[in-house]
Amino acid sequence: MKTLQQISLMLNGRLSGNPEVCIQGVNSLELAGVEEIAFLAKRDVDPAAFRAAALIVARDNPIDYPNLIYVDEPYLAFAQLLEDFYPATPFCAGVDDRARVSADARLGKNVRLGAFVYVGAGAVIGDDTEIHSGSVVYPGATIGRSCLIYAHVVIREGVVVGDHCIIHAGAVIGSDGFGFSRDSAGIPRKIPQKGRVTIADHCEIGANTCIDRSTLGETRLEEHVKLDNLVQVGHNCRIGSGTTISALTGISGSVDVGRNVVMGGQVGIADHLRIADGVMIAGKTGVSGHIKKRCVISGSPHMEARDWRRMHALLRNLDDYYARIRELEKRIAELEEK
Amino acid sequence: MKTLQQISLMLNGRLSGNPEVCIQGVNSLELAGVEEIAFLAKRDVDPAAFRAAALIVARDNPIDYPNLIYVDEPYLAFAQLLEDFYPATPFCAGVDDRARVSADARLGKNVRLGAFVYVGAGAVIGDDTEIHSGSVVYPGATIGRSCLIYAHVVIREGVVVGDHCIIHAGAVIGSDGFGFSRDSAGIPRKIPQKGRVTIADHCEIGANTCIDRSTLGETRLEEHVKLDNLVQVGHNCRIGSGTTISALTGISGSVDVGRNVVMGGQVGIADHLRIADGVMIAGKTGVSGHIKKRCVISGSPHMEARDWRRMHALLRNLDDYYARIRELEKRIAELEEK
Amino acid sequence: MKTLQQISLMLNGRLSGNPEVCIQGVNSLELAGVEEIAFLAKRDVDPAAFRAAALIVARDNPIDYPNLIYVDEPYLAFAQLLEDFYPATPFCAGVDDRARVSADARLGKNVRLGAFVYVGAGAVIGDDTEIHSGSVVYPGATIGRSCLIYAHVVIREGVVVGDHCIIHAGAVIGSDGFGFSRDSAGIPRKIPQKGRVTIADHCEIGANTCIDRSTLGETRLEEHVKLDNLVQVGHNCRIGSGTTISALTGISGSVDVGRNVVMGGQVGIADHLRIADGVMIAGKTGVSGHIKKRCVISGSPHMEARDWRRMHALLRNLDDYYARIRELEKRIAELEEK
Repeated sequence: MKTLQQISLMLNGRLSGNPEVCIQGVNSLELAGVEEIAFLAKRDVDPAAFRAAALIVARDNPIDYPNLIYVDEPYLAFAQLLEDFYPATPFCAGVDDRARVSADARLGKNVRLGAFVYVGAGAVIGDDTEIHSGSVVYPGATIGRSCLIYAHVVIREGVVVGDHCIIHAGAVIGSDGFGFSRDSAGIPRKIPQKGRVTIADHCEIGANTCIDRSTLGETRLEEHVKLDNLVQVGHNCRIGSGTTISALTGISGSVDVGRNVVMGGQVGIADHLRIADGVMIAGKTGVSGHIKKRCVISGSPHMEARDWRRMHALLRNLDDYYARIRELEKRIAELEEK
Repeated sequence: MKTLQQISLMLNGRLSGNPEVCIQGVNSLELAGVEEIAFLAKRDVDPAAFRAAALIVARDNPIDYPNLIYVDEPYLAFAQLLEDFYPATPFCAGVDDRARVSADARLGKNVRLGAFVYVGAGAVIGDDTEIHSGSVVYPGATIGRSCLIYAHVVIREGVVVGDHCIIHAGAVIGSDGFGFSRDSAGIPRKIPQKGRVTIADHCEIGANTCIDRSTLGETRLEEHVKLDNLVQVGHNCRIGSGTTISALTGISGSVDVGRNVVMGGQVGIADHLRIADGVMIAGKTGVSGHIKKRCVISGSPHMEARDWRRMHALLRNLDDYYARIRELEKRIAELEEK
Repeated sequence: MKTLQQISLMLNGRLSGNPEVCIQGVNSLELAGVEEIAFLAKRDVDPAAFRAAALIVARDNPIDYPNLIYVDEPYLAFAQLLEDFYPATPFCAGVDDRARVSADARLGKNVRLGAFVYVGAGAVIGDDTEIHSGSVVYPGATIGRSCLIYAHVVIREGVVVGDHCIIHAGAVIGSDGFGFSRDSAGIPRKIPQKGRVTIADHCEIGANTCIDRSTLGETRLEEHVKLDNLVQVGHNCRIGSGTTISALTGISGSVDVGRNVVMGGQVGIADHLRIADGVMIAGKTGVSGHIKKRCVISGSPHMEARDWRRMHALLRNLDDYYARIRELEKRIAELEEK
């Protein structure tokens, strides 16, 4: 519980209304009750529909409401409030006696390991990092400071994870790249995958997502990359900083993705392609060539989203046009007979 | 081993033939041997091709065969026989001494926990529920009665699972929703996900499937929802009762799926959409708008399946019609010259 | 470190150049430094761009370079060198005292089990097989000789894995097939899945990939099948020898895939289909009918890849042709008025 005054101070906001009002919780605009605070993203809404005790709004939002906190970025202020009102409780305090840490692994200060966590020889785990039950850190892997590793994560040998990363349950970092070469008898033979995965600071990796180690060198995620659940990142890829990738997307080997790219779900990218900074890729897009400049793409094979929409609008008339061709043929035949 | 008489009684069927025949096993129609029983779904088949000792058929099936058991729902009777002839053996008896149950977790009667299972503080597990090796029940999660949780399942904090649910290996229930907001510098910042997942009774969740917790409130699966492997359910979704979803399908955030919807594999549904009761969605469909009434849809962008089939049939003639347009242009030019 | 002489002998190659040159490592052509060896796949390249101490090339490659090792299959020789220069270190020596092996499981010679591995009653594990932390081998499963099972793999009851198989982290082998039948009230009822999965020798299964057990009989992978990460193989499928399947591909139930088939990522195959030997299926293809002979297919619905490319090329002209139809209508109307 906090007063509006306290909340406004915390958010570095400007308060309009009663500073003594007590806030019990944070909620969405539609669901917020009379003791809760919500945030308002839009303008031109009718405040009569809301019951929230107070609203967080952008500094220039002209809404009229009893209690308002004006901030620069309302959604991020809301995020801050969520964390403040509903803090995550540590999964464990210290190293559980049923975790197994190899003798020559190095744990930083305040590392917390759940039961049945395994940390291999030579692995390094930075200060304040928490690893939940059943996760496996292979020999020689390195995890930075203040990371949150959920249950059943697998971090293979030689993988490097930066600071402030979150890795969700079941993710596999550093699995072998999918590399085979058929011998003279046509049998696929494994190309050993001896590289590593490097994940920079502030990345978040979704549940059951897989990032393959490179054949040689590294597969690399730069800072602030956010991967959703069940994403596949192939070997030798580089994903530029600030890029977000939605669920079930598959990125083939040796793809170079720029900065601040946004991919929807179930996108597929063929191997060895380059995607420019800031490209937006709609869900289900199949990318089969380089994307050399910032644009929005869609479809499979991919094209600019507006072309794709136009093409699909045209397709709806195909039947009509075929009929018109047949009609033209009839009319021209009549003319020719004359 | 059972006699036909015993089987007929168990299935609440009507027996035609020799009640003393001994049945050693259950098999598919094609593979069933002379001491096995099979079920027959179709009519108008030639029984001479089968070797089964007996067949389970619908009450009005006119087939002529030495031994028949007539029932209302042959496939379900077959399912019942499979379970009866090949019962699952319990994975473990009681709580394995290498499971770790937090002191204030509450276990019902006859709860069975495999080795290396972790049950967090305040978690509740109902009577007769079995949880296999390595699964992790986070603090404050609740699992109902008579559930079967396979190995390596992760059930995050605050998740509620109903009675008689089956969760397959590697599934992650309650991972964070994929919510980010870019700050003024364009960096994606995490929106904390503080809601939960609620799964009603009789649901089944496939292997390595992920269901994200909501930002606030709940992500909800209603009764008898069946999810295949590697499915992604985004935050704040509701999946209506009796809906079945095949593998590798991705449902974005805040989607509302009706009752008894049937989705094929690799379907994608964009966020904030509503899918009406009973809709059938073919594999690989990309749903980009509300589906307001019961229908069958296909394609990406989606359309009614018959329109999609017709469109693709028309597309095969595109080359021909282009040629006809060029021919028309030639003929009309000739006419104009006259 | 090895001399070129030693490397040439090991690869059964023919050396041209200085046999005394010392090689410190193996690298890609672009990155190899002056003490490293690389392999050259192409012809007609300018060797001046490379710094590698030596190159592995095909016996008939006419390249001029100071040190060359001629071999029959350069890429496979490269693979062999990778393994030789960067050998995998065993994850564990013997059976970790925090593994749990049921009393009546049978372990071969030199089996290595990581911490928190569970091996159920009646399971059999062959000589020289290594299983990493947290993997679960259910009762009655059988694993062959010289297998490498990474962390958190789940091998369900009755599954049979051959010799020399590699299973990557988080894979689930033998999960229940997705079988339901709606009862008279429309509620989906589970069809028990009582069959098994059989995996022949030399298969490799990707991270978080799922292979479902059959209803009855078996789901079968033949020799040298290679599955990438996050692949779904449905119940009762057969995958022919030497077939490779890329990430996020979903194969429905009862599909029969031939030998040496190559599938890209995110392919979907509808149930009960047969795919002939040697078929190549492009990424994102949706296969909706039998593929009866060796060919390359693409698109959804699938068609021969050249038809698919041609169709998409034609589609780009749709707008133009519509305009030409409208123009034709105008011209013909003018002619008719005369």
